[in-house]
Amino acid sequence: MKVAVLGFGTVGVGVYEMLKNAPALEAGPVLVRPGKEDTGFKVSSIAAITSDPEVGAVAEVMGGTHPAYEYVSAALEAGKHVVTSNKALVAAYGPELAKLAADHDVAFLFSAACGGGVPFLHNIALAVESDRIKSLGGILNGTTNFMLDAMQSRFMSYPDALAEAQALGYAEADPTADVSGLDALRKIMLACAVAYGQLPDEGLCREGIESITADDVNHFQSKGLTCRLVTSGGLSENGSLFAYIEPVLFPASAPECSVLKNFNMAKYDGENAGRIVLMGQGAGRWPTASAVVRDLCDILHGRRIMMKPDCLRVAADNSSCAHSYYVRLPESEISRLPVEKAECFEGVARVITKPLSVLEMHQIAAELRKEGGSLFFAALGE
Amino acid sequence: MKVAVLGFGTVGVGVYEMLKNAPALEAGPVLVRPGKEDTGFKVSSIAAITSDPEVGAVAEVMGGTHPAYEYVSAALEAGKHVVTSNKALVAAYGPELAKLAADHDVAFLFSAACGGGVPFLHNIALAVESDRIKSLGGILNGTTNFMLDAMQSRFMSYPDALAEAQALGYAEADPTADVSGLDALRKIMLACAVAYGQLPDEGLCREGIESITADDVNHFQSKGLTCRLVTSGGLSENGSLFAYIEPVLFPASAPECSVLKNFNMAKYDGENAGRIVLMGQGAGRWPTASAVVRDLCDILHGRRIMMKPDCLRVAADNSSCAHSYYVRLPESEISRLPVEKAECFEGVARVITKPLSVLEMHQIAAELRKEGGSLFFAALGE
Repeated sequence: MKVAVLGFGTVGVGVYEMLKNAPALEAGPVLVRPGKEDTGFKVSSIAAITSDPEVGAVAEVMGGTHPAYEYVSAALEAGKHVVTSNKALVAAYGPELAKLAADHDVAFLFSAACGGGVPFLHNIALAVESDRIKSLGGILNGTTNFMLDAMQSRFMSYPDALAEAQALGYAEADPTADVSGLDALRKIMLACAVAYGQLPDEGLCREGIESITADDVNHFQSKGLTCRLVTSGGLSENGSLFAYIEPVLFPASAPECSVLKNFNMAKYDGENAGRIVLMGQGAGRWPTASAVVRDLCDILHGRRIMMKPDCLRVAADNSSCAHSYYVRLPESEISRLPVEKAECFEGVARVITKPLSVLEMHQIAAELRKEGGSLFFAALGE
Repeated sequence: MKVAVLGFGTVGVGVYEMLKNAPALEAGPVLVRPGKEDTGFKVSSIAAITSDPEVGAVAEVMGGTHPAYEYVSAALEAGKHVVTSNKALVAAYGPELAKLAADHDVAFLFSAACGGGVPFLHNIALAVESDRIKSLGGILNGTTNFMLDAMQSRFMSYPDALAEAQALGYAEADPTADVSGLDALRKIMLACAVAYGQLPDEGLCREGIESITADDVNHFQSKGLTCRLVTSGGLSENGSLFAYIEPVLFPASAPECSVLKNFNMAKYDGENAGRIVLMGQGAGRWPTASAVVRDLCDILHGRRIMMKPDCLRVAADNSSCAHSYYVRLPESEISRLPVEKAECFEGVARVITKPLSVLEMHQIAAELRKEGGSLFFAALGE
């Protein structure tokens, strides 16, 4: 099957290289910006690709929502299978594109959008056919895991950990999407869409790592706890979908503690299969390119659907998931929380709360910060 | 697709139940021993199944090599897809059955034979199409992991750990296949067949957990090390296949240390994807049954092949993999080993060796034991 590649950046170069070496696939034209068509295999108009009868599939690895949306739509309408690594695109337009693909009887797959080399979405898509998925999620962002690992195992400050991540190519010049948790939150949206046929695009709760300080690290490390940034999604007992991301503190024996550097750990809990955990590198040229090529091979095996064409957009409901939380906040603000235990020192309180819902905890944090207060919070995990 | 089930034991009951609930599948007749056909859906002759035109696939969950081999051959010759959880069958007759399946243009899949609910072989089969697998393996037996975990985290003796495993249904009345490492070794044979098109059925090196004592545990725990029983397979630089199982000692930070109770951890190292790790329950009714049903769904998607029909039987060559080993042996026998460091106490030596090949280490152990000596050895892992 001849595959055109949209984009020739980090991942695009990797995909093109792998296509040249893959036995059952053939490298097709590569779409680049006008003026960059320096060699025969590069083109600068999408029409050159959609009108080419030899092209059977398109790999979209450009990033960004537009014109990726327009190009992918054109490819699907022209009867080409589409594989993408673009989580922003799928989070924003997944249901439309899934429907367009189904209408034209072609595939729309996006394993590489969530977890890079870790075959998370592929395994979720397979599991739902034979099992009920009670919950899913995990550590889905390598940038933040690298930084948290550096702060905790090498006692680096937040700014130093960020600088090292940037130097190693694990963080962007503007790291906001990663450190705010937005990148990983998009991934859990996609995972919920695949697992439940529902894409939660409102009501999600999001807390990244931007508030954690070296003092916080010292304190919870002294209690034998390790912090990781963890996404969670699933169906509550009342049938509503929960989806959120927040820091979590784990005891040393938890598998999350062995997720080091920029690795990811995706989990799902099947009613029959039990808890399945997948770990690997969630980003980078070769892991991500291999996920794109894996999806293309899956198409050769007959797979067409990852997100159902009738996937609904829903509001997440995070009012039913409750945890105890560890919260560091000004001592004067303690009464905002249902306190189980508190240690106070020089005006700073470190609190273990009674269980409260994810929604409430995130709301309390937002209110305090709106009033200029500062806090760090993390759920207590097992 | 209507699916007949061969066998109605622990796994068979689970598969039948799941088939009744699976949307795209239908539960067909169940083959039981003559005299046990107490309800309408049970039959006692394989011919009743192979001659039934409505049956599209057969799930073999009987166990044992014969008559499973005869029944599976009959099913393939009758044009039925076959899915099996029977590692002994596939280890002994895999290439023949894969060829028979290909000749009749039907599927022969066996995810459930290796890792229960953990989708190891499925992911290996997918990975080989887009990547080169440098090595694979992991903790593939739940019985021995449960026992090692009990001995190390709860300071139980070997006999007590075995008794508890048996009481919980994690070990058979005769636990030899598990504690000797044979069960996990068969799994690595299958994984090599899927990854490399070569089934290593000679020259494998096997060391289980039968030699470990509470004293050994005390000693390496005092050095901060944790023991797991680990299989390894892959291609050496000279192109030969290595495949072996032995205890390994890990530092506390290794992911293997978080594999507790009867869980499995399968790993593979792809040239492009990097290291991918999958963890979950490797056995039990529902995890194993869900793997069988997952394979059936994969057939609906068009997958036919897990082991190539031209898969070769080869002799493993474990002379190129080298490790340092931790060895406990009689002080009088120290000269058998290339010693890096040794601690001797009351006639017992605990040695860290210089690197030696897996083949040599296992040969030295066999020679010493043949002469009546006792030793425990474990590779030093990272």
